[in-house]
Amino acid sequence: MRRSSAETKAVILAAARERFAADGYDKATIRAIAADARIDPAMVMRYFGTKEKLFAAAAEFDLELPALAPDQAGAGLVRHFLRKWEADEGLQVLLRTGVTNEAAAERMRTIFAGQVMPLVIDLTGDPERAPVRASLIASQVLGLALSRYILKFPPMVAATEEELIAWLSPTVQRYLTE
Amino acid sequence: MRRSSAETKAVILAAARERFAADGYDKATIRAIAADARIDPAMVMRYFGTKEKLFAAAAEFDLELPALAPDQAGAGLVRHFLRKWEADEGLQVLLRTGVTNEAAAERMRTIFAGQVMPLVIDLTGDPERAPVRASLIASQVLGLALSRYILKFPPMVAATEEELIAWLSPTVQRYLTE
Repeated sequence: MRRSSAETKAVILAAARERFAADGYDKATIRAIAADARIDPAMVMRYFGTKEKLFAAAAEFDLELPALAPDQAGAGLVRHFLRKWEADEGLQVLLRTGVTNEAAAERMRTIFAGQVMPLVIDLTGDPERAPVRASLIASQVLGLALSRYILKFPPMVAATEEELIAWLSPTVQRYLTE
Repeated sequence: MRRSSAETKAVILAAARERFAADGYDKATIRAIAADARIDPAMVMRYFGTKEKLFAAAAEFDLELPALAPDQAGAGLVRHFLRKWEADEGLQVLLRTGVTNEAAAERMRTIFAGQVMPLVIDLTGDPERAPVRASLIASQVLGLALSRYILKFPPMVAATEEELIAWLSPTVQRYLTE
């Protein structure tokens, strides 16, 4: 079976996301990622050049933040992030690698500043406090991901989406608008 | 200069905490920790046996949660955790290593279940919801540590202790008692 280069790249990126998430940036190797993808390591190098560039491609993504009514924004954001964390390993990859790798931490800061801050300004019309509001939201939604998907605190793993939204949406709503 | 064995152990543990926090569990080596502590690696092995046991000793600590009045508990807990994170690298070590190492994640779960849950039961008299309340508190205080000390979001780094307490204490108060 022959794959198009777009298909090959997608297969490599999927393997890279899993491997970076499982092993962290430093331990993950091009060789292991290539083996997972059943592709020659030379092909991975040809498409992505270096491990740094492969990581950048694997960790690049759009939070796809939806338009939200101001009074429903807290609940809307918590629901959106929960579904995003469940559906897309990219955020978990970044979180795991960001803890030990400065390049990944920088990407995390860029994503939250670049994507959450504009939403906050849209909702509040207040650019001055938008950076601190976006960071507070990050502290809670990343703390949610950490406790539910990575450290796996049993009550956070057992909670339903609706229960988590009920608990967390007043928090995020307050960081957004109060 | 001769040191007592208690002093030697303390020097090794301090070096181990820094090294585990900087490099993560897998990359940190007994050899590097011994070099940091200016002690022969054989001495480190003699005192602690294995890397696993050295890590367990380095990551073992008491949250030293204070007694808190129910209506001030949110602010009191946020203040306490902020000072703890600043003063004691142990929690940062655990958080960094817990992300990639299951033994460290398990220790983190044990610390929050064993130390935060009894405080919640004391304050609320409600054992049934104490596990979920303790986990929600963990999600916010660990998210705070993650965003301020590890990912270093600029607004979280720049914020004063009092500003963070003002933002976060209603959140922790609600998770505790509402």
